[in-house]
Parts: sequence; structure tokens; C-alpha cells
Amino acid sequence: MSERIIDFNADMGEGYGPWRMGDDTAMLDIVTSASVACGGHASDPETMFRTLTQARERGVTIGAHPGYPDREGFGRRRLPYPPAEIERFVAAQIGALIGIGRLAGVRVGYVKPHGALGNVAAEDRTVAEAIARAVRAFDGLAVLAMPGSEFERAARAAGLTTYAEIFADRGYTPQGQLVARGQPGAMIEDTQEAAARLLHFLETGRMKTVDGGEVPLDAVSICIHGDSDHAVAMARGVRRALEQAGVTLKSFLPAERI
Amino acid sequence: MSERIIDFNADMGEGYGPWRMGDDTAMLDIVTSASVACGGHASDPETMFRTLTQARERGVTIGAHPGYPDREGFGRRRLPYPPAEIERFVAAQIGALIGIGRLAGVRVGYVKPHGALGNVAAEDRTVAEAIARAVRAFDGLAVLAMPGSEFERAARAAGLTTYAEIFADRGYTPQGQLVARGQPGAMIEDTQEAAARLLHFLETGRMKTVDGGEVPLDAVSICIHGDSDHAVAMARGVRRALEQAGVTLKSFLPAERI
Amino acid sequence: MSERIIDFNADMGEGYGPWRMGDDTAMLDIVTSASVACGGHASDPETMFRTLTQARERGVTIGAHPGYPDREGFGRRRLPYPPAEIERFVAAQIGALIGIGRLAGVRVGYVKPHGALGNVAAEDRTVAEAIARAVRAFDGLAVLAMPGSEFERAARAAGLTTYAEIFADRGYTPQGQLVARGQPGAMIEDTQEAAARLLHFLETGRMKTVDGGEVPLDAVSICIHGDSDHAVAMARGVRRALEQAGVTLKSFLPAERI
Amino acid sequence: MSERIIDFNADMGEGYGPWRMGDDTAMLDIVTSASVACGGHASDPETMFRTLTQARERGVTIGAHPGYPDREGFGRRRLPYPPAEIERFVAAQIGALIGIGRLAGVRVGYVKPHGALGNVAAEDRTVAEAIARAVRAFDGLAVLAMPGSEFERAARAAGLTTYAEIFADRGYTPQGQLVARGQPGAMIEDTQEAAARLLHFLETGRMKTVDGGEVPLDAVSICIHGDSDHAVAMARGVRRALEQAGVTLKSFLPAERI
Repeated sequence: MSERIIDFNADMGEGYGPWRMGDDTAMLDIVTSASVACGGHASDPETMFRTLTQARERGVTIGAHPGYPDREGFGRRRLPYPPAEIERFVAAQIGALIGIGRLAGVRVGYVKPHGALGNVAAEDRTVAEAIARAVRAFDGLAVLAMPGSEFERAARAAGLTTYAEIFADRGYTPQGQLVARGQPGAMIEDTQEAAARLLHFLETGRMKTVDGGEVPLDAVSICIHGDSDHAVAMARGVRRALEQAGVTLKSFLPAERI
Repeated sequence: MSERIIDFNADMGEGYGPWRMGDDTAMLDIVTSASVACGGHASDPETMFRTLTQARERGVTIGAHPGYPDREGFGRRRLPYPPAEIERFVAAQIGALIGIGRLAGVRVGYVKPHGALGNVAAEDRTVAEAIARAVRAFDGLAVLAMPGSEFERAARAAGLTTYAEIFADRGYTPQGQLVARGQPGAMIEDTQEAAARLLHFLETGRMKTVDGGEVPLDAVSICIHGDSDHAVAMARGVRRALEQAGVTLKSFLPAERI
Repeated sequence: MSERIIDFNADMGEGYGPWRMGDDTAMLDIVTSASVACGGHASDPETMFRTLTQARERGVTIGAHPGYPDREGFGRRRLPYPPAEIERFVAAQIGALIGIGRLAGVRVGYVKPHGALGNVAAEDRTVAEAIARAVRAFDGLAVLAMPGSEFERAARAAGLTTYAEIFADRGYTPQGQLVARGQPGAMIEDTQEAAARLLHFLETGRMKTVDGGEVPLDAVSICIHGDSDHAVAMARGVRRALEQAGVTLKSFLPAERI
Repeated sequence: MSERIIDFNADMGEGYGPWRMGDDTAMLDIVTSASVACGGHASDPETMFRTLTQARERGVTIGAHPGYPDREGFGRRRLPYPPAEIERFVAAQIGALIGIGRLAGVRVGYVKPHGALGNVAAEDRTVAEAIARAVRAFDGLAVLAMPGSEFERAARAAGLTTYAEIFADRGYTPQGQLVARGQPGAMIEDTQEAAARLLHFLETGRMKTVDGGEVPLDAVSICIHGDSDHAVAMARGVRRALEQAGVTLKSFLPAERI
């Protein structure tokens, strides 16, 4: 069994002002890495600080989770920003989170784009390169990306360390891409099924596909959702199943205090 | 004549989206330091980038100019934020500007709070300390403060390098404080009068006061406004008068490219 | 028994973009009037439309619930707006909700200020008058106010129809005012106690006070909270207890479709 | 000479908080109708109130000028809002302006969509219909539209009164559409040329086209820009030239005080 250590990551700090998205406190006990919203699609200084402080207390590795500046749309809309403007807002968002991290005493280790920005970056090389330039402007930031995506390629070409992730609750095509939401097999709803697929991947390096086959994937992190009570329960169940099978959950980067 | 070198600073990058405040391009040819808004009371990633790029081209030293998160009020309202929240939003704003500075290729050298935040920090020690903590969380940032203010004291107590500024167009009380806006003598409207006062200060270390006396002040920078056509003309006139009198205009910090 | 009919009102539509505050759908089955946020402290056109549509389907009377334009602070901070500016933002918020109501097919019947704006309006006559002027600028809007508050007085003086409310879950002083949050007796946590107090009020016109006495109050509506699972359960329990005691829950204004 | 009376309209109130766009006060002395931003792409309650009050003092007819909720992009970006959401935000924006108009004592008479929203509405029937539904939800509002546009057609189909406008400073194709910005002949820079074209149109009902021909157009209003010093000067010059040729400038709707 080649790989029995893997990271568990989730998006976090996606509240805004008085509002919460999911149960971050519960999720921070489950994950080993947290991709933290930084004021684009969600969050604000107080939300960032609270999230980073809780992550620090639990030794969870921190990533920045920039998104389109679109709270009303939660960063799920593809907004018509040219790559140069994306580069700028991503740099400003990462910088803001790093600033809050300095107060909370944690280092930001990686960057993972959110929602529509992540989807566009996976497909569009110029956007992928713009985000990679914004990441590279900071010292020592890695990226977390879909294996085989344009963003992974652009980040590598920019000299960035890249880590790849698979999704606990999403179906895969024979080409190793996610089945589009709304298509049959897009979502894995059952905790045991999700766990079984991940264990199979950890043992073989191959993910089950929607057509009954398998596709080889290379990933060091599992992305899990925590934006509903059901999602938190599933995250907890998948973690338990992996641990019972002897898998060690550990981030691809250390959780550094500063 | 003890001091014949002084810095000329102005607030900049205080537009937002399609809107401009003053003529930054003109002012960047006049000043030696620019305190750049960072998304609180004004600015956005595009405005920050444009301002920092123009400043870099002219060798102007960059400071961060954080303010209450209040664009509609332009940071001029005293908002009821507790010090801990001020600390957080200031850190987020500084971080955002530093992030954009990394893209624009310039280092942010100092921090000067804007408007109501600056006024509160000058008077209220707990707010002054909160801002000083936010500044200290970043490495190598100085502060630009009113001489004798609580903010200057808190920054020094926090181990920060502090620089003091005087105002080209504001009247002073015998205690070395600004005459409140709306009071007689609050504003110096005439360019020659402003220049004469500054030259007298540069020669003697003493500023003329509203009651006809003088007050000793210690400052390495002159703050000048540029938020109207009149203000730009006055800034240009004051600079010319100082230069004709043999004063060298030079920032208290080098303008570092990165 | 003089009064056995009373209204049950709650604040609603206090989400924003992807975020929710409480369970509006559940609360709309419990209340007879809904005070709907209109883009100041919370809400946006989609949230307003969804809330008004659900209210219309259930025959719930609609009020506008304007607040300080402060989503991050959820309208709970006393912001330094002069009365004339309060008048303007309240009118803009009411107008926006009325506009959405025209699409949703419901009339807005009354106005109740939210949070800090409500508290300031209860104490400060000039703010109370400003809000009353904004309400009066629209035809046919009533106000819902604390009995004895400056806002009630200002609204009456402006010729507006006023309705008074009591709070299901808040303690009262001997003067008929709310015990300040954080003080002993400020919150009524127990459903049965809340229901018993309200029944006593409905039978006698007198509310139990924090010192063991009673105070006469004049109110046609009970304000109940729904911003947590506990709050929804309490609202449901209080409603059931009142109905079992023979009280009819009915709004002080008809729910008009347009 | 069939038509010697025409309206002169401009976009106004397009500042935000401390920022201004163009010189509204000057333009309000030139135009007979003002399309006033209502908090989407620009404006806020104070800006709306100031603009409506100045318009009222000058007897200028008021229209609502809704746009995509995108201040940073000034409503010039085509945002991916589905028609139903456009309908909602347009209704909320119109409602807000009407609310402020009630305080300022002026009636809002018509609606003209701004920027990208106007361009999309001119081409896309479902968006045009959505905006028409939002307008129709209010009583007595007309629309101001490009002749031959989908928005004009949808508004008519919805039973709304429509008025058509031509542009003082834009070139026309042989089909009666605007030459796209960036194409040769898109902009008319010269005041005398603009005036001559408009006089020819007023005399013949035909507009000169970019290929040297003419196209019949039906319009009761001339749209003129005022967003720069040059634009204001041109607006003033065109007005003067029309008046010297005996044209009466008068809105297609009365400026009603309420």
C-alpha cells in the first residue's frame, strides 16, 4: 500500500458579519487543512481572525481561499474580470489573510481558489497564470489544485509547489474530471460509499468513475464539504472510516505558528 | 540651520472603482511619500495597483493608509469599533496593500491611519495601541504620526520606528495641536503663507500658532493635501517655494523596489 | 377579559446572499406579522423577494424593518448618522422593499426600525422624528413601536397610525422598559414562563416586572425572535400555549395582496 | 419642420459617498430630463437626495437609472444575472429612488437602464421583459429606450408608455444602431458636428450614418453625456446651438412635484 497518509481539507471562514456558513468549529476538529475565505466571496477581518485562531488551536494547516469579489453570489458566478484584475484581487485577498494570520499567530501555507474562480482557473490558462502570478508574489506559498487542471500546470510553470486534491463527495468521469453538478452521479451522498471510494484510491491510486471504470489520479489531499449539518456528519463519518482502515490524516504542509 | 531636508507626504489612491479623489498623477510628481488607501475608507485592488505603480515609477516612498471600513463616509466618521476589531481590520488592510505592492514591485514602508481613525488614535491610547499591534505584526513597518499624539507614544512603546509630520495647511494651537476644523485659523489657504510657516519651522524647529506665538515641533515630514484642484496647486506652490529656499525634499524612508 | 386577540411578529428576511439568519420558513408558519429587512443591516433583492413571497403564501402581514446600513455589524451598532441622513436611508430602504413587494404581490403595511436604530429611535426624539418623516413620505404606512417610546410619540405627532408591541422573551423594568441585555432578568429563556407572562398581560393589561411587580402596558403585538433553533422552538411553544388558552393570533393589519 | 421640440437627457447622481462623477449641478442647468442612478452601479441615499433636490429646484424631469449592482465596475460589465434576478434588483432600485423622491418632493417619471444593463436589455428579449415587468410593477412609470431595441418592444408589449432617444455624441450604423465603441466613427467629438447632426434629424427625422448615408429614427429625446469637463462643455454647446436654431428643449414628461 503505497499511500496511507492523506490530508483532509475543507473550505472555512465562509461566514460574513453576523452570518455563518456551516459549522467551522466542528469541521476544524475533522480536517487537517482549512482553506479560509479572505474577503472576496465571503468573510471579513473578524471572521478571518476567529477562523485562523480556532485553526491554530487545533494545529490545522491554513490555506487562503480567494474568490470573485461577490458576496451576494458567494463566488459561484463567473464574473467578467480580465486576468490582470483577477491577479490583483487575488493578491489583495491573500495579503489580507496573511495580515490577519500575523495577528492570529499562524502562517498561511497554500492557496486554493474558490468556486467559479477555481473552475475558471481549472480550464482557462490565462486566468490560471494570473492566479499563479499572484501566489508567487508572496514568498513560500504553495497551491492546492485539481490534478490535471490548467491551474496546476500554470502553478508548476511558475515554479510553485503544487499539491493535488480529490473530492470525497463528487463523481468522476473516465477522464478524471468531476461529473458536472446536475448530471447523474455528480454527488456521492452516502458516507460509506464515499469512504470506500477513497480507501480504494488510497490503496490503488485509482478512483472509481461514473461509468463503472477507474481512473488513475495523483492526490495528497481529500476535499470534503462542511457547509451543512449533513456535510459535517459525512465529513466526520468519512474521517472515522479512513482512520479505522489505518489511514493517517495529516496535512501536506505543517501547521506553522508564527 | 539644523534641518533643510524634509519629506512631503499626501494621501493617495483614495478613489474607488470608477471614481477619483484628487489628481494622484499630479500629486505623485510633487510628493516624496504617498500614504495609500487600502480598501477601508477608499480604494480597491485596481486603484491600489494603479497608485502603487505610478508611485514606483516616480520613486515615491509608500505608506499604508488604513481607515474605518466606511466608504460612504470616507472614513471621516468615528465608528464604534472596539480596539480589537480595529486591530484586525487595520491588519487586513495593510496586508492587502502589501499584497498589491508585491505585484507592483514596491515595498510598503510605513503606516499612517486615515481621517477619523487617525484622530481617534491620536487621542485614545487603547486604539493607538491596537493599531500599533497591527503594524508590528508585519516586519519592518514604521509609522507616521502627529508629534505628541497617543499614536506616536503607543508606536514607540511597541518598539516601532516613528516619524512625525506637520501639516502645511492647518493652523496650530499653542500646545502644538491642530486647530479644529471650523475654528478661526484652522486652515491656511494661502500658498505663500503656508510656505513661509514651513520655512520658519525648518529654520527654527518652531511652528507659528494661531494666537501669534510659536510652538516647538519635531517633524520630518510635511503633510499636504491633494484632494482638489486648489489643493494640488497649493502643494505645487509650497514645494516650489521650499525648493527655491534651498530645502531638499526627500522621504524619511527610501522608496524600495522589490 | 378585555383583549384576547393579539399579533405575533418577528424579524425576517435577515439573511444576505447565500447566508440565512434563523429559519424564516418555520417562523412564517408561527407569526402573523413579519418585519422584513430591506437591505440596510441585512437582506438583498433576492432575500426580500423570497421572504415576501413566502409571507404572501401564508397570509402574513408585512412590515419594513429598516436598519443602519451596516451588514457586518448587523445593524446593532449605533452609527453616527445625523437625523437627516437617517431619514434618507430609511426612505430608500422602505422604497426598495415596497418595490420588491410589488413584484411579490404584497403590500407593505407598517415600519419597525431594527436593532440600534430602533433603540436610538426609542430614546432620541430627533431620530424618532426623522424616521417618522421617512414613513410619512409613503402613503398609508403605520408604525410598530415600543409603547411609551419617543418613536411612538414622534409617529403619532406626525399623524401616523401606531401599534405597540411587547416582547415575549425580554424582562421589563417597573417603568415598562426592557431590562438591558446583560442585566439579570433581561432574557426570558423558558417557554412556559414566557407564555404565562403573556397570558397574564392579555388578561390584565399588566406585564410582570423584574422586581416582582407589574406595569400596565398597552400593546397589540407580541415580538418573538426566530434567529436560532431554540428561538423557533420557543416561538412555536408560546404560540401553542396562547392558542390553547383561547387567544386568537391575528395581525393588527390585514395581509393585503396587490 | 415636423419636430422642433425635443428633450435633452443625461445620466446623473452617479457619484458614491464622497465621490462625484461629472458636474451634476452644471448638467442640471443644461438638460430637461435626468436619469438618476439609484444605488446599483452608483449612488446612495445622500447622493440620490442631493440630485433629486437639485433637479426639483430646476424643474428637471426625473427618471430612474437602474444598473447592475456593481459599483466597482460602474455597471459597465455584463454580469451573469438571470432575468428573474434582474427584475428584482431593478424593482428594488426603482423603489429606493421613488422613496427618496418622496422626501425630495419629486415624482419619478420614467426608467432608463444603465450601461451594460441597457445594452443587454436592448438585445436580449428575456432581460428586456424582466425590466419591463419591474417597471410595470410601479404605477405610471414610462420607459426611455433606444428606438428599435428589444427593450422598447418589450416595454410596449407590457403596456408601458415608451419614449425613444438618440445620442448626441455617438455615430450610427445604416441600421440605426450605435457604432460600437472603439470602431471608427463611434464617437462624435466636435460640438458643432453633433449639433448639426441633431438639427438635421430634427428637420428630417433622419440621422446621418457612419457610411455617409442616413437612417430614419423616431426619437423625442437626445441623450448627452456629462461625465467630464469636456462633456459638460459639449452639452452646453449643443444646447446653445439647438436653441439658436429655434429648437425648444422640453422634456417628454412634466417635472412633477409631490
